[in-house]
Amino acid sequence: MAAPNTSQKMKAVRWHPPSFDIRVESIPVPKIQDDDDAIVKVSLAALCGSDLHIYRGHGGVDKIHTCGHEFIGEIVELGPNYGAHSQGRPALYSSLKLGDKVVSPFTVNCGECNVCRMGYTCRCPLGALFGSPALEGGQAQYVRVPKAGGTLFNLSDSQSWPSGLSAEMKHKALAGLTDSSLLMLADILPTGVFAALQAMNHPKVLPALTGRPWPANFFPGDASITMLPEDRVLTFAIIGLGPVGLCASVSLLDMLAAQPLPFQVIAIDPVDSRREKAMAVYSEIDQAGKGTGKFVTYDIDDARKAVEASTGGVGCTAVLEIVGNPSAISLAYDLVRPFGAIISVGVHGAPPMPFTGRQLYNKNISFDFGRCPARAMFPMAFDLLVKRQDVFGAVGGPGSLVDRIVGPDEAPEMYKAFDQSKVGKVVFDMWK
Amino acid sequence: MAAPNTSQKMKAVRWHPPSFDIRVESIPVPKIQDDDDAIVKVSLAALCGSDLHIYRGHGGVDKIHTCGHEFIGEIVELGPNYGAHSQGRPALYSSLKLGDKVVSPFTVNCGECNVCRMGYTCRCPLGALFGSPALEGGQAQYVRVPKAGGTLFNLSDSQSWPSGLSAEMKHKALAGLTDSSLLMLADILPTGVFAALQAMNHPKVLPALTGRPWPANFFPGDASITMLPEDRVLTFAIIGLGPVGLCASVSLLDMLAAQPLPFQVIAIDPVDSRREKAMAVYSEIDQAGKGTGKFVTYDIDDARKAVEASTGGVGCTAVLEIVGNPSAISLAYDLVRPFGAIISVGVHGAPPMPFTGRQLYNKNISFDFGRCPARAMFPMAFDLLVKRQDVFGAVGGPGSLVDRIVGPDEAPEMYKAFDQSKVGKVVFDMWK
Repeated sequence: MAAPNTSQKMKAVRWHPPSFDIRVESIPVPKIQDDDDAIVKVSLAALCGSDLHIYRGHGGVDKIHTCGHEFIGEIVELGPNYGAHSQGRPALYSSLKLGDKVVSPFTVNCGECNVCRMGYTCRCPLGALFGSPALEGGQAQYVRVPKAGGTLFNLSDSQSWPSGLSAEMKHKALAGLTDSSLLMLADILPTGVFAALQAMNHPKVLPALTGRPWPANFFPGDASITMLPEDRVLTFAIIGLGPVGLCASVSLLDMLAAQPLPFQVIAIDPVDSRREKAMAVYSEIDQAGKGTGKFVTYDIDDARKAVEASTGGVGCTAVLEIVGNPSAISLAYDLVRPFGAIISVGVHGAPPMPFTGRQLYNKNISFDFGRCPARAMFPMAFDLLVKRQDVFGAVGGPGSLVDRIVGPDEAPEMYKAFDQSKVGKVVFDMWK
Repeated sequence: MAAPNTSQKMKAVRWHPPSFDIRVESIPVPKIQDDDDAIVKVSLAALCGSDLHIYRGHGGVDKIHTCGHEFIGEIVELGPNYGAHSQGRPALYSSLKLGDKVVSPFTVNCGECNVCRMGYTCRCPLGALFGSPALEGGQAQYVRVPKAGGTLFNLSDSQSWPSGLSAEMKHKALAGLTDSSLLMLADILPTGVFAALQAMNHPKVLPALTGRPWPANFFPGDASITMLPEDRVLTFAIIGLGPVGLCASVSLLDMLAAQPLPFQVIAIDPVDSRREKAMAVYSEIDQAGKGTGKFVTYDIDDARKAVEASTGGVGCTAVLEIVGNPSAISLAYDLVRPFGAIISVGVHGAPPMPFTGRQLYNKNISFDFGRCPARAMFPMAFDLLVKRQDVFGAVGGPGSLVDRIVGPDEAPEMYKAFDQSKVGKVVFDMWK
């Protein structure tokens, strides 16, 4: 955990314009630039579906930069603002130490502004996305983390973050979790939990969950209309079964299993291998985690038929859209019921929204768009990670979320294979 | 209350294609067509902003029909399904009597399907909008109400609908409310309440209201980030100060006054007279109804500056969009904060949504679109009507919601003046 010699070079996975050009290069190790910075020695870094936007040249980017926004490692250098003189700042400024194991959310956040304090950490005005032109990424042997005292999760100090679990349980869980499992906390697991949480707590989903018709979940008077047991149909669709879609599936199943109603999760992807992976993940979940529901996978055409048939033509209670393109959000519209909720965590780009105002008005559609505030979602995601070690613990099995761990030299090949849906979640061991 | 002689003729306000052609015609009185029908003798019918969509020829409509979806009157004829043999059906099938005073929501709903039982009454598959090609409207001396036992509110039987008020208070309130006040229950008041209710209960608005940062309103563990008092800024914008916008303003103010935080409601309309009306309505509200907040009006440019200045550039907690066109929903996007909620009850038409996916992702925007389930919102709207008789009780004053009550022969002129924002809410006394 000695500070790196800053004249030293390191391996980094770098993107070159205009597209599909990933190179493994030797570049200088990063230095502390700002007093709030930390330098992290990266043990593992992962490849994420949203890395493909820039990879494919869709990001409007032309700057060569180090890729990657999912990484785990240890603190090897801290700026001068860390230590005892950091009173009144986020706790990590005084508690973070050299050698601490940390995982970073995929964006920087200061933790000290109005946006961060409201929990909307991914939209911190001082924030930046790792692995973008604004900030060098984590697919490197070292990475500079700005505002590290607001950004990082300190896995060496389980007292520093709240959770539904006791400190003892957290400590025990941390001892049993591999780095490749903990790395899921950087993005895909909190993003999946964020999607499921928004679906389960949407005001228009509450009537089915609570049995109180609109607006009785908010208005103290009685409802003038009474729901029947058969009205409480819980049909959720998940569009996109890449790694985030799998995390969303596991999280949604976990939440649904905690309530007594029967439910159905219709998981949709056109790629056969992704549907097979989703079913294998489902098979890893124990019966308690499956609740009184069922989880089924379909390609797009069959999903349309299944929703039509199983809901009597009404549509899904909510749809989780985890792809980020016009055809996925259009499918979500088609599948959701009137007064249904569409939760979109897919990274959408330049195309316009494919809806007229009349379509949205006529179906009373609700949308929640956008990026997961991963820093704020960390405690929930961590608890799920511990609870579902059956799913998040293994590497390379049919039901494991991490497909393979490879050295950085394989990055160009892995980007290509991931872009073509030929591999699942890939993790780089930066020192292999 | 004798049943009308069905060979008799009646006055009706009729729309003729292609646009801007309103005629007052003598047509046959409607007959019972279905066993669930009722015939209502209309005392008052109102002109609504959404009537202008068809008036202007924007509805894609070419069928001559009777206009209007806001009406109040009395039952003069009931189909054979009413009376003692209606057990198991909505209560009104057995309790509704000739002579009962009723107000109708602007759409028919059966009250017996899954959609109705969930409270999403405006999307009943058997429903139809009054004053559309699908169903003759209420700007006539008589109107046929399909599925009247599921649709109507029986104002003569205050036991038949729940409320936060006692039966005695409801009875007393009904005695004191004029028909022109009660007519607000047909559409504009429940629609305004629906907009305000969705804004105040949106999951992304809760952190400011409760002081618990995202996701602590849903996750039982502690929050890792603590909000400061100054983070709980409640800035709401309302775009569109027509009659529905005024109802939304009164409803939102009522809800905000019930909580302790200071707040700001920025009410926006380009038309000077509408802003003046909004301020006059605000001046009618007593101090208890104003809470610890302020209500200000601006035109569009000044509203942009006011939101920028008063929120330090962050934007509004939520925006209520009550216009229904691309420029209004674009303004809502510009004014709302990241992780803000846009509640749109404006009747949107054929234009596409003016957003790219990236814009929505990058600002973590939430939308709730669509029509008010007026039947389900009736109890809340009724309670507000009673509570705010200072605003809803008068006709023709500077702070009254109803601008004037005129005979049906003035309909062509009033449609024209309303289309040009030269009059406020117009009510037709169909027998004047």
